[in-house]
Amino acid sequence: MTRSLAALDDLLAATGADAYCIDAGSADSNQLYLSGFDAPDPFFTAYTGEGLAVLVSGLEYGRATKESHADTVARLSTYDYAERAADEGQAAAQSGVYADFLSDLGIESTLVPERFPVGIADGLREAGVAVDVDRDDVIETVRATKTDEELDAVRRATEANEAAMAAAEDLIAAAEVADDGTLVIAEGEEGEAVPLTSERVKEEIEVTLLRHGCALDETIVACGADAADPHDRGSGPLEAGESIVVDIFPREKASKYHSDMTRTFAKGGTSDALVERFDLTEEALSAALDAVEPGATGAEVHAAACDVYEAAGHPTLRSDPDAETGFIHSTGHGVGLDVHEQPGLNPRGEELEPGHVITVEPGLYDPEVGGVRIEDIVIVTEDGSENLTAGYPVELVIE
Amino acid sequence: MTRSLAALDDLLAATGADAYCIDAGSADSNQLYLSGFDAPDPFFTAYTGEGLAVLVSGLEYGRATKESHADTVARLSTYDYAERAADEGQAAAQSGVYADFLSDLGIESTLVPERFPVGIADGLREAGVAVDVDRDDVIETVRATKTDEELDAVRRATEANEAAMAAAEDLIAAAEVADDGTLVIAEGEEGEAVPLTSERVKEEIEVTLLRHGCALDETIVACGADAADPHDRGSGPLEAGESIVVDIFPREKASKYHSDMTRTFAKGGTSDALVERFDLTEEALSAALDAVEPGATGAEVHAAACDVYEAAGHPTLRSDPDAETGFIHSTGHGVGLDVHEQPGLNPRGEELEPGHVITVEPGLYDPEVGGVRIEDIVIVTEDGSENLTAGYPVELVIE
Repeated sequence: MTRSLAALDDLLAATGADAYCIDAGSADSNQLYLSGFDAPDPFFTAYTGEGLAVLVSGLEYGRATKESHADTVARLSTYDYAERAADEGQAAAQSGVYADFLSDLGIESTLVPERFPVGIADGLREAGVAVDVDRDDVIETVRATKTDEELDAVRRATEANEAAMAAAEDLIAAAEVADDGTLVIAEGEEGEAVPLTSERVKEEIEVTLLRHGCALDETIVACGADAADPHDRGSGPLEAGESIVVDIFPREKASKYHSDMTRTFAKGGTSDALVERFDLTEEALSAALDAVEPGATGAEVHAAACDVYEAAGHPTLRSDPDAETGFIHSTGHGVGLDVHEQPGLNPRGEELEPGHVITVEPGLYDPEVGGVRIEDIVIVTEDGSENLTAGYPVELVIE
Repeated sequence: MTRSLAALDDLLAATGADAYCIDAGSADSNQLYLSGFDAPDPFFTAYTGEGLAVLVSGLEYGRATKESHADTVARLSTYDYAERAADEGQAAAQSGVYADFLSDLGIESTLVPERFPVGIADGLREAGVAVDVDRDDVIETVRATKTDEELDAVRRATEANEAAMAAAEDLIAAAEVADDGTLVIAEGEEGEAVPLTSERVKEEIEVTLLRHGCALDETIVACGADAADPHDRGSGPLEAGESIVVDIFPREKASKYHSDMTRTFAKGGTSDALVERFDLTEEALSAALDAVEPGATGAEVHAAACDVYEAAGHPTLRSDPDAETGFIHSTGHGVGLDVHEQPGLNPRGEELEPGHVITVEPGLYDPEVGGVRIEDIVIVTEDGSENLTAGYPVELVIE
């Protein structure tokens, strides 16, 4: 995957640090982005502006040589890691080996990210390496602006996501309403009706994503009171007339880039209060989408959604920071190697730039009525924005 | 999930530290174990021996109150996080809020794990909190010994894993050998034969795991030269006569506990060299399994496998630390919330105890012949061991 490190080069030049170092596995997206190497266990990366060096176990050496962005690949065994770990313990051996590796590269001072391990930082400092923390997370800032290749990966993940959303919607649409008000489907062992659960819909979503080359982390299929808690993943039988929030955020396996979208459904009639909240949320979505353009700030897009809700008399975190009902989260977030990354559409949201990929996802929550959220994923373009999920209908009631 | 924190209490008493603190999301298994709270974004946990306190965003407050082990749940907004982030920046605000939270709890000194974020550690130290690094990772040590409830979770994940292995084996067994030596299956759009790929077998494994309540991270289905690199996940068409290493390590979604097993298959005849390596690996597996009992060390179990390979003239990392062919990894590792955790079956492996869950997975690798690995998952018991995957056949050639 192509990447641009200009802002990192600028930071190194401005601070005078010899290098930027990361110690993490590729589950840390900054490590994956900087090193280009996908490995589960932590490994050490040093970027000097002139080159990239990685230090890995012997087991990863072959792959690192072939697959990473590194100009230099070194092995722990070159620095007698195993012998030192037996003598000094693993933690001390690790810091000592890293210090020797940096010394070989001529690195006497380094920046590290906020979440660099303190044990290693302390060890490097004891060994005489100056370690300063990059409090602005330059690599996450760099990652916010996507190349065309990265955008293509997000587009593919979005196509898979729409297929999974359609599978979920079809399953809910095929359900019948039982006498007790639960949704049921004819999937019992003898073909009899069994409750349609959150878990069953998630399974359908996840299998569909797998068939489209995407992996899953979590999926939200939350009904009724569950749906009124934005972070509740949902469980148990789905109920007729209640809102069902379906929020899917898959990762394309090959590229590791994500997509993210949400729709809210109801089956078998619904309350006027829910319909009103759905329509208002569609209005907030539209207002926020209209505000997305290069030069606008994430704070302005968030304010556009808050304006709609507050004008209709609903609390937001802007009008009441302790609100537990109403619009109780930010309007969106960047999407890329992480499902939540820069830029944020929140009160502190900074300027949007072409190549940013963001969700726009207003919602209203109240345990008495249920939850509603509608989420599109959008690319900030030179002259406005491109809504990747605009083609997926926004309709509450499905029959 | 029940857990025992006696060793952590002992460490606090021995060091005199007021608390043990973690800042991480639940992807960090120490955080998940200590807090009992499953949340994707980092949150702050302070354990004092007398109680557990967590500090979370408002969005997570309700769930944390209901679902975590915490005696005290506090919100970032109580410490004016948003206002401070706007004034001082997010990193400084975070450390400042954590310092105030610790002050309210009467905590002046804390231990933190090796991988605690250096940015926060530096911030706490500037605020006058003494931060010392626990270089022995006490929580990972505690986690190594499982309760019956944890063992049951591993057993369920193992049952799912055996079902996924059988699905993979069935798919390979159903393949035919094409004229060019690739394996093919009748799955084209018109029912015609198409190549059976590593990706197709992984999809079958992953869908089977989902149907059994397990999530997947990665799966290895590696053939021929790919199989000769123990960390290569495999790709492309499978070939007749070549070894196909299938290594599956699922996580049960509900409990988050893993299982892990490997079998090596070949379809359509195979070389004598491969059969010989397979038989030798089965012998190494048997020798290592025989060595597993309470009081034996991980180093002794590893040595038992090395002995078999070296006696047959194959290099191991014991006989040659830079070996690139032969037995080039450790004999196994603990399995639990992490797929790789304590204890290790390697030259530094310490004493095994009842309740440890370990893999035993010798293997031989050579790009000229292919790779072979056979992996069982085993519980260390009071009087020996229980092999959870003993019922799954160990057979190379499938027809």
